[in-house]
Amino acid sequence: MAAPDAPRGRPRDSRAHQAILTATAELLAEAGYAATSIGAVAARAGVGKDTVYRRWSGKAELVYEAVFTQTEAVPVPDTGTLRGDLTVLLDALVREFTAPGAAAALPGLLADFAARPELRARIRSQFLAPAKSRLVELFERAVQRGEADPDLPVDLVLDTLAGAVFFHTGLLGEPAGPQLAAQLAAIVGRGIEAR
Amino acid sequence: MAAPDAPRGRPRDSRAHQAILTATAELLAEAGYAATSIGAVAARAGVGKDTVYRRWSGKAELVYEAVFTQTEAVPVPDTGTLRGDLTVLLDALVREFTAPGAAAALPGLLADFAARPELRARIRSQFLAPAKSRLVELFERAVQRGEADPDLPVDLVLDTLAGAVFFHTGLLGEPAGPQLAAQLAAIVGRGIEAR
Repeated sequence: MAAPDAPRGRPRDSRAHQAILTATAELLAEAGYAATSIGAVAARAGVGKDTVYRRWSGKAELVYEAVFTQTEAVPVPDTGTLRGDLTVLLDALVREFTAPGAAAALPGLLADFAARPELRARIRSQFLAPAKSRLVELFERAVQRGEADPDLPVDLVLDTLAGAVFFHTGLLGEPAGPQLAAQLAAIVGRGIEAR
Repeated sequence: MAAPDAPRGRPRDSRAHQAILTATAELLAEAGYAATSIGAVAARAGVGKDTVYRRWSGKAELVYEAVFTQTEAVPVPDTGTLRGDLTVLLDALVREFTAPGAAAALPGLLADFAARPELRARIRSQFLAPAKSRLVELFERAVQRGEADPDLPVDLVLDTLAGAVFFHTGLLGEPAGPQLAAQLAAIVGRGIEAR
């Protein structure tokens, strides 16, 4: 907590940033994607619309960060096994996709991504980049332990993990039981072929 | 082809059915999801709107059948190996998701599914049922060959396969190269752990 006479700038900026993200997630859960306008978010966060636009170029970018960057808030898992690490990673993904804000945001967000090719082109390079770098770190350790091949198609593994969680929980709305992350980690980690 | 004096009914019905599905896929690709109304589909197929409503309870159901039942049109793969069968299945999925009609339909279809809980509740039981029965058949042969565990969570494997293809091609719009199905079959079939 900054003291009242602390220099302005980063601390206040950081508080505004977090207030905007929190307001966005709350609005999504309460009122849905369509009603979550930049103006409504700014009003709820107690900032001006220009403060929002200084940080995010549009609603889709703001909503994406508000609901899909939870995974990056926790350290990269290091349980000692690839399967263990994948389970932790998938568990965070499941929590992200089943949070009230994310569930409310997904359909509208997908429609916006699909309708705006320039946004869609940035999904891989911008939105998915942090998740990929975490997966790469986790795979590098698995390769060192001899648990994984060094020539894994990381992008495709990421799409498989995210796609499985999205399809199961986000699209079908299946309840995310406590075993879901471990079951998906087993399917993608060990594969479905018997050995 | 039915002779002119053949009894009416199924043959003509079947032709109307196919004409409606074809008109739907074409309209989606040309004009997008929003413009693909039941009225526009009926006009293009040369039938009355009531003929469409006799077969499909709404636009989402019709669009889903028009773009996502290609996989069921080919025999269940039986290549002799689980990996080979998965590759054929995934290849059909990739073709479905990258067809012009499907690519145009997906965002609007997802938004409709999300906005109508009664429709969403039927995805698993109705829309995904044919794909699951094909996967079950393929797994049963793999279990008999000792290639797969008998207690596989089939629903979750199906969600992983469909989710991976949807996320990679449908959502991100990645080009579907000739190796995509085989790479996904390797990830899900063999797993990413080295052995």
